[in-house]
Amino acid sequence: MSKAIQQYIEKHRSRFVEELKVLLRHPSISARDEGCREFAHLLARILAELGVEAKVMPTPGQPMVYGHLAGPAGAPTILVYGHYDVQPPEPLNAWDSPPFEPAIRDGRIYARGASDNKGQFFTYLKAVEAINATRGRLPVTLKFLFEGEEETGSPHLPAFASANRELLQADLTLFSDSHIHESGRPLVILGLKGLLYVELKAKGVRSDQHSGRAASLPNPAWRLVWALASLKDRQNKVLIPGFYDDVRAPTALEKEAINAIPCDSRALLDYYDIETFAPGRFSDAYYFNLVTEPTCNISGIGSGYTGPGNQNVLPARALAKLDFRLVPDQDPDDILEKLKKHLNDGEFKQLEVVKILSTDASRTPLDSPALTPIRQILQTVYGAEPIVFPGIGASGPNFVFTNILKQPCFLIPFASVDQCNHGPNENFILDGFYKGIRVASELLMHLAEAPVLKTADR
Amino acid sequence: MSKAIQQYIEKHRSRFVEELKVLLRHPSISARDEGCREFAHLLARILAELGVEAKVMPTPGQPMVYGHLAGPAGAPTILVYGHYDVQPPEPLNAWDSPPFEPAIRDGRIYARGASDNKGQFFTYLKAVEAINATRGRLPVTLKFLFEGEEETGSPHLPAFASANRELLQADLTLFSDSHIHESGRPLVILGLKGLLYVELKAKGVRSDQHSGRAASLPNPAWRLVWALASLKDRQNKVLIPGFYDDVRAPTALEKEAINAIPCDSRALLDYYDIETFAPGRFSDAYYFNLVTEPTCNISGIGSGYTGPGNQNVLPARALAKLDFRLVPDQDPDDILEKLKKHLNDGEFKQLEVVKILSTDASRTPLDSPALTPIRQILQTVYGAEPIVFPGIGASGPNFVFTNILKQPCFLIPFASVDQCNHGPNENFILDGFYKGIRVASELLMHLAEAPVLKTADR
Repeated sequence: MSKAIQQYIEKHRSRFVEELKVLLRHPSISARDEGCREFAHLLARILAELGVEAKVMPTPGQPMVYGHLAGPAGAPTILVYGHYDVQPPEPLNAWDSPPFEPAIRDGRIYARGASDNKGQFFTYLKAVEAINATRGRLPVTLKFLFEGEEETGSPHLPAFASANRELLQADLTLFSDSHIHESGRPLVILGLKGLLYVELKAKGVRSDQHSGRAASLPNPAWRLVWALASLKDRQNKVLIPGFYDDVRAPTALEKEAINAIPCDSRALLDYYDIETFAPGRFSDAYYFNLVTEPTCNISGIGSGYTGPGNQNVLPARALAKLDFRLVPDQDPDDILEKLKKHLNDGEFKQLEVVKILSTDASRTPLDSPALTPIRQILQTVYGAEPIVFPGIGASGPNFVFTNILKQPCFLIPFASVDQCNHGPNENFILDGFYKGIRVASELLMHLAEAPVLKTADR
Repeated sequence: MSKAIQQYIEKHRSRFVEELKVLLRHPSISARDEGCREFAHLLARILAELGVEAKVMPTPGQPMVYGHLAGPAGAPTILVYGHYDVQPPEPLNAWDSPPFEPAIRDGRIYARGASDNKGQFFTYLKAVEAINATRGRLPVTLKFLFEGEEETGSPHLPAFASANRELLQADLTLFSDSHIHESGRPLVILGLKGLLYVELKAKGVRSDQHSGRAASLPNPAWRLVWALASLKDRQNKVLIPGFYDDVRAPTALEKEAINAIPCDSRALLDYYDIETFAPGRFSDAYYFNLVTEPTCNISGIGSGYTGPGNQNVLPARALAKLDFRLVPDQDPDDILEKLKKHLNDGEFKQLEVVKILSTDASRTPLDSPALTPIRQILQTVYGAEPIVFPGIGASGPNFVFTNILKQPCFLIPFASVDQCNHGPNENFILDGFYKGIRVASELLMHLAEAPVLKTADR
């Protein structure tokens, strides 16, 4: 650990927090196209002030902010990805301080975007400053890619990456989002699940009718229920033919890593107030299934009247929202076709299946050489052994790096479990912010020494 | 048809409409306890002005208004039932004129309660006036019972009837509600379905979670879907063991009456914008099933997120509202027990089944002697052959008269099919109001002559 860098960070950390506040004061809500373009230009200016060659690059949606800081000739390249857009802050009255007026309380900074993702990506900018100030220059070539649509599913990132492979080529991608373990131990996450999000729409009569007519008129809520029941059995096994065909079996290393994830099943059951976990195909263990099981989840279902008391409705429409979390090598579009075939070629011809969005699964192998120094750096900064997740249940843009750009991608969270991202009172624990800057500095300083980077695993 | 009575009605009909407006100006919304007691006293005063001995009788809910007008010694007794409460008028901005400011437009009177039920029961009061004015007195003993909680499921009517059998004893009950046939032909309805309305509640984890956890945490929406799918097969047959045990088979007379109901299946399918009707156990015919098939209907289902786009929810709760429409001799409480046994003794132990309300089925036999003169009177006034429904799909308080008071009960609508009851712009076509007064007069004058009443079928 570089003492000089560490001292620089400690000396300037109050200013770093003030600088972060500038980013947090500026709303950049992709879901309603509020302030994103302005934020992109602000971010490019901030990068330029660091000596980074920065540009705002258009997409059909919100612009990308790209940055490039050349290292020594022949130095390996690190791509830091982050996203500058934030979730809508509503409901506003649930916040203890306004979402775009950052406030410090109890060692945390509260604001929309504090941890997701402005605060977490800002650590890399401050790491660059600390290295430049103490060492003069970075030992690696550093690229930044900040997108403005992660919160709406990164709709333009895959095409942007495909069209700019050269620009984005790197030896690995670093992404700091999500949160560390509830015990305080740091995490490295090597994979995200894919996602296929669809709506199933059933149509019955022209408009809602009195349920006295239910003996003679069809009810689309029943059709939807029967269709849903045909998708999954009561042991959670997905019944769509071919659903599991492309599931890559977990490796021995992955199983070992899953077993090393600390898991207090009793505490989890109590926390969630349930008696048993959902069964998987091969195990009922919480983390085994979280990492390895693809899912078919009813994210929402609605039809007719669900208010208090009785209203006697024969509904005209019924809707379900399903999210499938997919594992390597399931292809969302292939699963969509299999779903449609199962429903529409079978008993549910008239059920409309509408794709809302999809994302591929990502998986960085556990034997990626960069993992060892990453673990060592986390161990040093946190003073605790990092937990390695071969994958988690959530989805995100990581496949763009692993699958399109063919780079290992390491998700290294700095926020705490109670960051309240997406909700009111989103916050970033300042200790996590400072540790994040240290981790980022160490990664930029020392990953160049990792064998994988030296041998340029391109 | 009595010429004098008919002339009296024609001469005074403008005034009758003005008097009806008085009733319609007075809100009496049982769902929120607004104005009902005041209305009950207003109605009792109006009855008293007609020479009816009237009283307001308390219940644990809204009061009953009871009236008695003695006929000649030994004369048969007719009970006229109606309800003075109305549905809430919301949404107010969907009305073309305010719901409690009755307005005449295009031969209709528009107001909340115009047809359901103030306008329709008021016909009997005006019939009494017309007979008194032209004949001096009624040839029958007339009893009135007006309740103030029909729109909330008549929760206190059964107990009131059980406790006041002597007071309410009559040879038959007349009830004018609902609407005539869309062709303009008059209707007589001899039965309503029973109703069992329940909620099914499924509980999962403590609070909604990110759906990335769906591989390991149970989803109550799936449990609810599986439970619902176990209740009915795809041919609409209810799978609850014993559900059909007590279903009384339709009689030959009932089948004949059902076949006589005019039915343009093609027009109905077009109107409802569907390809086929819901299948029944013995027939796919619209009216056969409407009258004879008991149903299990999903009146509402809700869980998770159903708004636009995607929200990745593992829901913590799921709710379904089911309404069972029952036929004679199914007992709602027996069906409830069978439902609970099927679910809770089976695979769905933790599913909560909550009864919201229940109503018994009613059925007046097609060979009730009063039916013949009723049909003749309707034929005369409307100049069209009445359609006799052995039953309809809806539910209501008629079982109180057929099952508790053991009287035949005839539901004789005067409103038109486009009455918009329960919705905005509720209206009563004035031609129906006038015809209703004529029908009511004829019924009060001539039912005394029907053999059933002469022989006092008590």
